[in-house]
Amino acid sequence: MAKGITTRASDYSKWYLDVIDAADLAEHSAVRGCMVIKPNGYALWENIQSQLDAMFKETGHQNAYFPLFIPESFMKKEAEHVEGFAPECAVVTHGGGKELEEKLYVRPTSETIIWSTYKKWIQSYRDLPILINQWANVVRWEMRTRLFLRTLEFLWQEGHTAHATRQEAVAETKLMIDVYRRFAEEYLAAPVFVGVKTAAERFAGALDTYCIEAMMQDKKALQAGTSHFLGQNFAKAFDVTFQDENGALEHVWATSWGVSTRLIGALIMTHSDDNGLVIPPRLAPIKVVLVPIWKDESQRAMMVEATDRLTKGWKGRIAFKVDDREQYRPGFKFNEWEKRGVPLRVELGPKDLESNQVILVRRDTGEKIAAPQEGLLEKIEQLLEEIQSALYQRARVFRDANTFEEDDFQAFQKLIEEPGGFFWVHWCGQAACEATFQETSKATIRLIPIDGSKEQKAAALFAASRRPLEYWWQNLISRIALILQPCGVRRIL
Amino acid sequence: MAKGITTRASDYSKWYLDVIDAADLAEHSAVRGCMVIKPNGYALWENIQSQLDAMFKETGHQNAYFPLFIPESFMKKEAEHVEGFAPECAVVTHGGGKELEEKLYVRPTSETIIWSTYKKWIQSYRDLPILINQWANVVRWEMRTRLFLRTLEFLWQEGHTAHATRQEAVAETKLMIDVYRRFAEEYLAAPVFVGVKTAAERFAGALDTYCIEAMMQDKKALQAGTSHFLGQNFAKAFDVTFQDENGALEHVWATSWGVSTRLIGALIMTHSDDNGLVIPPRLAPIKVVLVPIWKDESQRAMMVEATDRLTKGWKGRIAFKVDDREQYRPGFKFNEWEKRGVPLRVELGPKDLESNQVILVRRDTGEKIAAPQEGLLEKIEQLLEEIQSALYQRARVFRDANTFEEDDFQAFQKLIEEPGGFFWVHWCGQAACEATFQETSKATIRLIPIDGSKEQKAAALFAASRRPLEYWWQNLISRIALILQPCGVRRIL
Repeated sequence: MAKGITTRASDYSKWYLDVIDAADLAEHSAVRGCMVIKPNGYALWENIQSQLDAMFKETGHQNAYFPLFIPESFMKKEAEHVEGFAPECAVVTHGGGKELEEKLYVRPTSETIIWSTYKKWIQSYRDLPILINQWANVVRWEMRTRLFLRTLEFLWQEGHTAHATRQEAVAETKLMIDVYRRFAEEYLAAPVFVGVKTAAERFAGALDTYCIEAMMQDKKALQAGTSHFLGQNFAKAFDVTFQDENGALEHVWATSWGVSTRLIGALIMTHSDDNGLVIPPRLAPIKVVLVPIWKDESQRAMMVEATDRLTKGWKGRIAFKVDDREQYRPGFKFNEWEKRGVPLRVELGPKDLESNQVILVRRDTGEKIAAPQEGLLEKIEQLLEEIQSALYQRARVFRDANTFEEDDFQAFQKLIEEPGGFFWVHWCGQAACEATFQETSKATIRLIPIDGSKEQKAAALFAASRRPLEYWWQNLISRIALILQPCGVRRIL
Repeated sequence: MAKGITTRASDYSKWYLDVIDAADLAEHSAVRGCMVIKPNGYALWENIQSQLDAMFKETGHQNAYFPLFIPESFMKKEAEHVEGFAPECAVVTHGGGKELEEKLYVRPTSETIIWSTYKKWIQSYRDLPILINQWANVVRWEMRTRLFLRTLEFLWQEGHTAHATRQEAVAETKLMIDVYRRFAEEYLAAPVFVGVKTAAERFAGALDTYCIEAMMQDKKALQAGTSHFLGQNFAKAFDVTFQDENGALEHVWATSWGVSTRLIGALIMTHSDDNGLVIPPRLAPIKVVLVPIWKDESQRAMMVEATDRLTKGWKGRIAFKVDDREQYRPGFKFNEWEKRGVPLRVELGPKDLESNQVILVRRDTGEKIAAPQEGLLEKIEQLLEEIQSALYQRARVFRDANTFEEDDFQAFQKLIEEPGGFFWVHWCGQAACEATFQETSKATIRLIPIDGSKEQKAAALFAASRRPLEYWWQNLISRIALILQPCGVRRIL
């Protein structure tokens, strides 16, 4: 156990906060529930942003910016939306020293302000689709907050698209949940299940909420991203219509999708260990740290010079850091960079210099590898890809080892308590069953799979629902199943 | 005159709004005073951001993020600061459905929340300097708003640094105003004067405000960026002390500096013309647009294919767009890209194809240049640099032709009305003179130069002031002079 970091086994919640503290990522601010994202944490967010932003642009999206404030009357236009969000809003009542005629809500999400704007932009099918994303801060008045996972203010991106047909909007919703899946798997190195939420867990105002769910090291689920098919709800609320190719007036179809600084929480809880943070190389602000080792002043100059020689030409090719601070001993430095999650450490001592080698130390496994100085950058790049892949594999093995299929409800009730994990189980699809069950247990339905990877089973019962037709079809060809968190579940089939 | 764009000569203010509209950059939102930054406008901001961000990082700064909300008690800790900002704040009084015990101000700037945080981070000289920047939205309750130039909510960056000595903090303040100057001149292609503000125009809570001032095409000044030397004001207000190398307890020295989406307003008003937006190539989201020209369907396929062949290998090397839309005629397309400010247009018709050439059209001058297809990308890159440089030169010539030195107050009073422009004149340095004069005229003191480029003159009078010593010294070696906006000024020497 590293100094100052509680072990996962002894107190998982405290371990999480200790890792954040040890890696100097964030802290609570003087404003209740709001966090300060410190430079190390923000550098992670910048890397997440820049990768996602590239993926959004590759899929045809553009960025824009809409106001922070939403007039109260806008919030009230979509009935489910206001019911879901208004109670958790921060409300501005005074501006410029005067009481406002209409209250302004600090945006908890931007559907209403954006659809009131789209009304002006959309007249004809030629104006569609609109494919816009916004990077912004949002505020939701959470009572129990947790750094990165749930804070009163957080940073996120929210995509808001407008389409001429249901089919196109559904395709967009699925495209974006797949972008999130790819990002989670290829960059966060976090395996995820993809599916749709139950009606009870849907975004307020959506017809369908697609999600990606990841398993943390405590075997609990974390919702890492959502993509909402909003149907024509917001178009109807804000009266946004367009003339189709035949001259008929139609309401526009909508989607919205978002991920937030919560992804940093997912990153921490998927990979980190009792020695501190572990960052997947593709998202690491510093990918490799070089620590020259010396015993006296004359050696110091020689070793620093050797390290400078070694890293000549690296600038612009790899994000590296040379730690040649005089006042700290190597052991202190090793520990510091380990806590901060730098994927790879290069040690260079006088003996290594003599034999033209360095020692490479992997953050994920602790493995030490002697490597020749020649071709070092290529060796490092190769190792970083290996680490990226190993982190994903480790997380995948862990998740799969803790994901079960269970047909028997009695057995499931015991298993969800011990050993816990994710469970694929049957569910009738009725909201009443879900509600009753959640009251008598601690399990939550995480998703209904849509990828057809589970065998088909016919369902005995279906609930009345506003779900679109293709949803039923999916439900029938996929197994009628759910992932549940360790806490119980209802089996009705 | 382009369709829909008022000329500068007939109505400069309307021309400005017409250009924004024609280039589809932004619009007013349903929330009073807040703007929607549309994709074309936001793409400009992204380019501004990414260049500035690189310059901040090169000068040793890191990004972080601090809360949107500031408790009322924090605002009140620095007397001048609260007096300057509190009246123009948006105030949150309710959250999560309840009235708050303490009001929260939506940040108009973040000195107070940041210095309350720095207090926790700084104990010893080893913790200094802190060099942090934040990209964020801020709110100031402006009554008269104007797209990009003055809006209730705007996007900006704010740097907040902490130092062990006055000298180091002053050096940082100057370093950052010089970063802004470089950005303005090398990227915005806008020549600027650098100087300090008078006490009356200083940032609330600063000892000195350094600024860059640019001349717009109506000969008026636009403050494009400011860098504040805050002395120990905020450290004292929030009791932020550190132990120096000798063990003595000292208050920390501070700076803050920022630029905002107003830079887009500066860009528009410096370069655009009666045909619409003109974007300096280095900041252009689309640097070159290619328009294949055809007469019938068979030609169309041939010309589109030729254009594709021509641009093969360009992706990733230059931001270009091929406009092969079927439904519009070439003239319509030329006009559209002209309005949007794309620096260079490439026309390719059947005859050009035969003679292996293209026609290049410069946005800044309208000049048409026949160029061989071979080596086209290199030719374009060279022309873009020429345009960048020509835009700067044109703006520089315009500014210099409209900047005067005037020793005689009577003469100046006439000249500032007609022809107007910037005037270097004498000022005693007394706040009372500045105030009296501003009441009886429309002139404002834009800055006192610090670069020593003006000849030395002794000043007859100095005002009592909290300014640091080196300020007086600069004042003595530089000419005691000011830039004034067309509206009058006081000469006391």
